[in-house]
Amino acid sequence: MATPNQQNLVDSNKVYASNFTKGDLALPPAKQYAVVTCMDARIDPAAAFGIDLGDAHVIRNAGASVQDALRNLVISQQLLGTKEIILIKHTGCGMLAFENQQATELVRKNLGEEGVKAIAEGFGGQFLPFSDLDEKVREDVEWLEKNKAIAEGVKISGWVYEVETGKVRSVK
Amino acid sequence: MATPNQQNLVDSNKVYASNFTKGDLALPPAKQYAVVTCMDARIDPAAAFGIDLGDAHVIRNAGASVQDALRNLVISQQLLGTKEIILIKHTGCGMLAFENQQATELVRKNLGEEGVKAIAEGFGGQFLPFSDLDEKVREDVEWLEKNKAIAEGVKISGWVYEVETGKVRSVK
Repeated sequence: MATPNQQNLVDSNKVYASNFTKGDLALPPAKQYAVVTCMDARIDPAAAFGIDLGDAHVIRNAGASVQDALRNLVISQQLLGTKEIILIKHTGCGMLAFENQQATELVRKNLGEEGVKAIAEGFGGQFLPFSDLDEKVREDVEWLEKNKAIAEGVKISGWVYEVETGKVRSVK
Repeated sequence: MATPNQQNLVDSNKVYASNFTKGDLALPPAKQYAVVTCMDARIDPAAAFGIDLGDAHVIRNAGASVQDALRNLVISQQLLGTKEIILIKHTGCGMLAFENQQATELVRKNLGEEGVKAIAEGFGGQFLPFSDLDEKVREDVEWLEKNKAIAEGVKISGWVYEVETGKVRSVK
């Protein structure tokens, strides 16, 4: 028995597939760039950032963390030829709203010590929240610029998307 | 001086923002689910999977790895109230095309021993490739079902998206 969200996937996809004409796109991104942005439900990267199908890798995680994205970026560059990173964090991010210890306590309360053990094993128990949006964009760009897993010459820029207005602005 | 991809972001976003009417959406996803899919350039989750703005978290990484996504899923569930995971891998995935050792050698060749050290520090040098698409979808669903960081009762389903046809099919 499908859930409503599964049924929506099936129904929406039928319409999408019936109009689909892009079955011959190449695996490597045509415009040779990767976007790192947040998993936030209020962001539609293709529409808001002008990404046509086939043009760019789109990496999304909680907070648009570049530390969390490093594996993906190395694959994107070394195996699939991208040469540019566009990092876009956003206003109203959930990662601005809590501290690591609070999240850990929530896991303990809801999932017990087994849950705390599972997050430690899974990701070192590090939820990667942050407190200053623009500063964190700058820090993440600098972190990438210094990281030896990113080739020299890769262009890196940092931006903020405003969920209230739909606008992006350049930070670094 | 903006790169062509940065200029495209600025230009496309101007048009998007000028028509933007969804500035009052809530932070928690309205339909209380998270989609985990691949960063592949040929996937547009909103369009292909019927995700309206504000409805779902969208997590994207190389290969739609649930191990890589665990931090995001715990945040999505514990802090933002989602209760369902829809995992969608896809045909033609880059992660089917190499083995870990090959990727490491590529990093060594292109970035030197410093690069190899950086990927070890950043993500344990584990690129997480896989060799059987449908089997990996099943394995990842089972991995989530058993993981103590995921609350009991969270609905989990696994799917494959075909980049050649635009169609999704249910796997588990």
